[in-house]
Amino acid sequence: MKRFNDLTDFSTQEIKSLLKLASRLEQKPEPRALEGKVLSLLFLSPSLRTLASFQAAMSKLGGSSFVISPDMSIHGLETRPGIVMDGEAAEHIREAVPVIASYGDAIGIRAFAERKNLEQDLADREFESLASLANVPLINMESAIQHPCQSLADWKTMDDLKIPSNGGRFVLSWAYHPKALPLAVPSSTVRMAAQRGMDVVVLRPPGFELPSKIMQDAKRLATENGGNVSETDNRHEAMEGANVIYAKSWSSTSHYGDRLGDQALRENLLDWCVDEPWFDNSREDCRFMHCLPVRRGVVVADRILDGPRSVVIQEANNRMKAQMAVLHRMLKG
Amino acid sequence: MKRFNDLTDFSTQEIKSLLKLASRLEQKPEPRALEGKVLSLLFLSPSLRTLASFQAAMSKLGGSSFVISPDMSIHGLETRPGIVMDGEAAEHIREAVPVIASYGDAIGIRAFAERKNLEQDLADREFESLASLANVPLINMESAIQHPCQSLADWKTMDDLKIPSNGGRFVLSWAYHPKALPLAVPSSTVRMAAQRGMDVVVLRPPGFELPSKIMQDAKRLATENGGNVSETDNRHEAMEGANVIYAKSWSSTSHYGDRLGDQALRENLLDWCVDEPWFDNSREDCRFMHCLPVRRGVVVADRILDGPRSVVIQEANNRMKAQMAVLHRMLKG
Amino acid sequence: MKRFNDLTDFSTQEIKSLLKLASRLEQKPEPRALEGKVLSLLFLSPSLRTLASFQAAMSKLGGSSFVISPDMSIHGLETRPGIVMDGEAAEHIREAVPVIASYGDAIGIRAFAERKNLEQDLADREFESLASLANVPLINMESAIQHPCQSLADWKTMDDLKIPSNGGRFVLSWAYHPKALPLAVPSSTVRMAAQRGMDVVVLRPPGFELPSKIMQDAKRLATENGGNVSETDNRHEAMEGANVIYAKSWSSTSHYGDRLGDQALRENLLDWCVDEPWFDNSREDCRFMHCLPVRRGVVVADRILDGPRSVVIQEANNRMKAQMAVLHRMLKG
Repeated sequence: MKRFNDLTDFSTQEIKSLLKLASRLEQKPEPRALEGKVLSLLFLSPSLRTLASFQAAMSKLGGSSFVISPDMSIHGLETRPGIVMDGEAAEHIREAVPVIASYGDAIGIRAFAERKNLEQDLADREFESLASLANVPLINMESAIQHPCQSLADWKTMDDLKIPSNGGRFVLSWAYHPKALPLAVPSSTVRMAAQRGMDVVVLRPPGFELPSKIMQDAKRLATENGGNVSETDNRHEAMEGANVIYAKSWSSTSHYGDRLGDQALRENLLDWCVDEPWFDNSREDCRFMHCLPVRRGVVVADRILDGPRSVVIQEANNRMKAQMAVLHRMLKG
Repeated sequence: MKRFNDLTDFSTQEIKSLLKLASRLEQKPEPRALEGKVLSLLFLSPSLRTLASFQAAMSKLGGSSFVISPDMSIHGLETRPGIVMDGEAAEHIREAVPVIASYGDAIGIRAFAERKNLEQDLADREFESLASLANVPLINMESAIQHPCQSLADWKTMDDLKIPSNGGRFVLSWAYHPKALPLAVPSSTVRMAAQRGMDVVVLRPPGFELPSKIMQDAKRLATENGGNVSETDNRHEAMEGANVIYAKSWSSTSHYGDRLGDQALRENLLDWCVDEPWFDNSREDCRFMHCLPVRRGVVVADRILDGPRSVVIQEANNRMKAQMAVLHRMLKG
Repeated sequence: MKRFNDLTDFSTQEIKSLLKLASRLEQKPEPRALEGKVLSLLFLSPSLRTLASFQAAMSKLGGSSFVISPDMSIHGLETRPGIVMDGEAAEHIREAVPVIASYGDAIGIRAFAERKNLEQDLADREFESLASLANVPLINMESAIQHPCQSLADWKTMDDLKIPSNGGRFVLSWAYHPKALPLAVPSSTVRMAAQRGMDVVVLRPPGFELPSKIMQDAKRLATENGGNVSETDNRHEAMEGANVIYAKSWSSTSHYGDRLGDQALRENLLDWCVDEPWFDNSREDCRFMHCLPVRRGVVVADRILDGPRSVVIQEANNRMKAQMAVLHRMLKG
């Protein structure tokens, strides 16, 4: 494996094999598997789970890692191409990325969406230009449109909880948040659930439709794997018989990159905070999923997060376990 | 060992056994003892020795660690319970702690006192609420009222220097500092020296008495171990025949949480800076101890710190060695 | 090896032996060579390559490292001797350095020049005072006047590229930069190329002559190793038949520590940006070297940096490999 960027680059069989490897490593640790191997971790955007879980994953396999991020005392990183660097930044990403990559056996890169131009973010232009500078195997640690490690962990979490794939109903729901957030998680999640063969419903208010390219990909994956994908703004309809509600806030797509337009849509949607009444017609054991970090009392009520429906800590823990499988496959000779 | 929080939770025999293990690891390194083990380190307060010595301790035993602190580019950590998170912080400690803990085989947490309410700090309420969120063995890396790693290192340092336990005289002295500092170190230190069976004197100006709960605990420990504990504001009386003076600044307890009241008491106490005349009637070889960081020329004169009395570097080095013993006991299968 | 501070402390034979070790470790990894060994890394100045490459180097040899820098949430570091510490800084370097050193089997320290007084920087006074506080083997990770890791890596890079030592022509050229930068890299580089036995030309505008102490050292080294050293401000003359141009900006030495005087000299030198016309009379395969970070369009044109002449990424990668040899020699029993 040279590139772990988009979960849908892998066949359903390949994903199941990765998940089997994750479970095997969970049962039978291999504390010397990656002896002498180094993972370079480049964070151009904030992180907590990813920062911690990649370091822990390498350590548990006997390898190690180092972290570079612009909040360290480095020299300031310029990203714009062709610029005359007479300002603050003393180093260009065109040198920094290949150098950092060259110290490791693989590199993980995180760079969130700029959220100015939807086409550009859908094409993952910034991430791809960073990735093209690295000459070693690459892991996407969240880009404008991908978050494959989260999706692999979420798939594993549903397997662990015996949530049915074919026939299981998965509601991906928009939720309120004071800021316009990137599309990476919902885009990855809808496709993951579709590829798992689930009955997927995207529940979102008008103006927050997922990009049609993403929905088309999800529908194709669903068809190939015995599931289906629909979308609605009707909560009651969406939640009917749901096994899972996966909450996430994201930017308006009708007003993408338009801060005021997004805000105007968003400010009437404070009731999109997942709470017990949402589960009126779901399955009784319907689970609550979220990638974290989550704003309590804003995205979801405390009683849901602290109650038996919530599996957010298991999801976060499975980040480490899923990543161990990816690293093992990528780096074990 | 599931919890290393309060040194006095352990019997004197158990502490001696830990110190014996520390010395054994000093003599006979075990560079694979903790292979594949990971220690999560969560710093909600500043650190240098603790940050470095825990990482080094895990490494020397063949394990590893990762560090999370709010000064990193993470998402901002909310600590208040029940709050609607529509402000700056994007993540609540109720998710962050269990997630970080779940990536390790044990977790170390540092969270200094809020110093608003003495009862609350004595009950270590904030630390206990953090600790209750972690589902793995726990190490207290300094809380409002505990600093067990420092105390274990200090005990080891006195053993290394052959400072007598029964019959040895230990002066814990308040010292001037421009800021009101927490009670964790003096509270831990007085009880440690008492449990070591020493003749302990707490030397402090009026208004800076240690809390009676702490003094009572110390007196009980002294009685059980053949020592005794007294307090005074008379320097000459305190230093009579002393083997050790352990200097530390702390908040006024009569004006706890009252910044101006504390300041008013403190501003007349600039002469509480340990210097050679303090040693007039001590034992000739009386040692100077301090947990560091120490303000030169404020808490202690340069000539003491740079002279033969000072053992502050040994104390700091013993942090690593004491912690290696704790980690070995906690994590070695 | 107890001290890796100045490459010229080592005989040419010793350097060749280190480079041979670096190549051997490149061919035949030794992922357990430094098992249980810890490297303390103290950064008092910014870093990217050094920060990443030392961590990676220790990891690849089975050891590990920890990093301390003032931008972390530590206690503020005071460096002035004899001061009464009643200000912001809560810890003095006189405690911090020996403590940090004591947690490792060796320590690396970085502290850039103050650039106030040339004599003081040439004597490396600040670094030497830090180094004197560490009681373990020491690596200079860049001081006021030394950067031995960079020079060893650069020597290796030229060997790897089969750039001739005796008879090879090495041009060390000043380049424009908006800020007055330290002398560590040019001072180390000119002596390295001289010791490698090359035909060394220092190309710099008036006012930017390298200090005569450095030039004398370089000339002596050249004589001993069959090379020679000259200096000029004539670009065409310097580049005649060059195998390598090594670009670097540095402070004015005629106006050292005089910000406005330096600026007045510098502002007319924007054409000291290496570009293709510079190579008119060089060897056709003349290489471009730089220690990084480099300001694109300021120090060097993009087309050079992105073209076949540039070997800057190889140089940076050789930092890790050179340092692995140093660490292996220093720490392997």
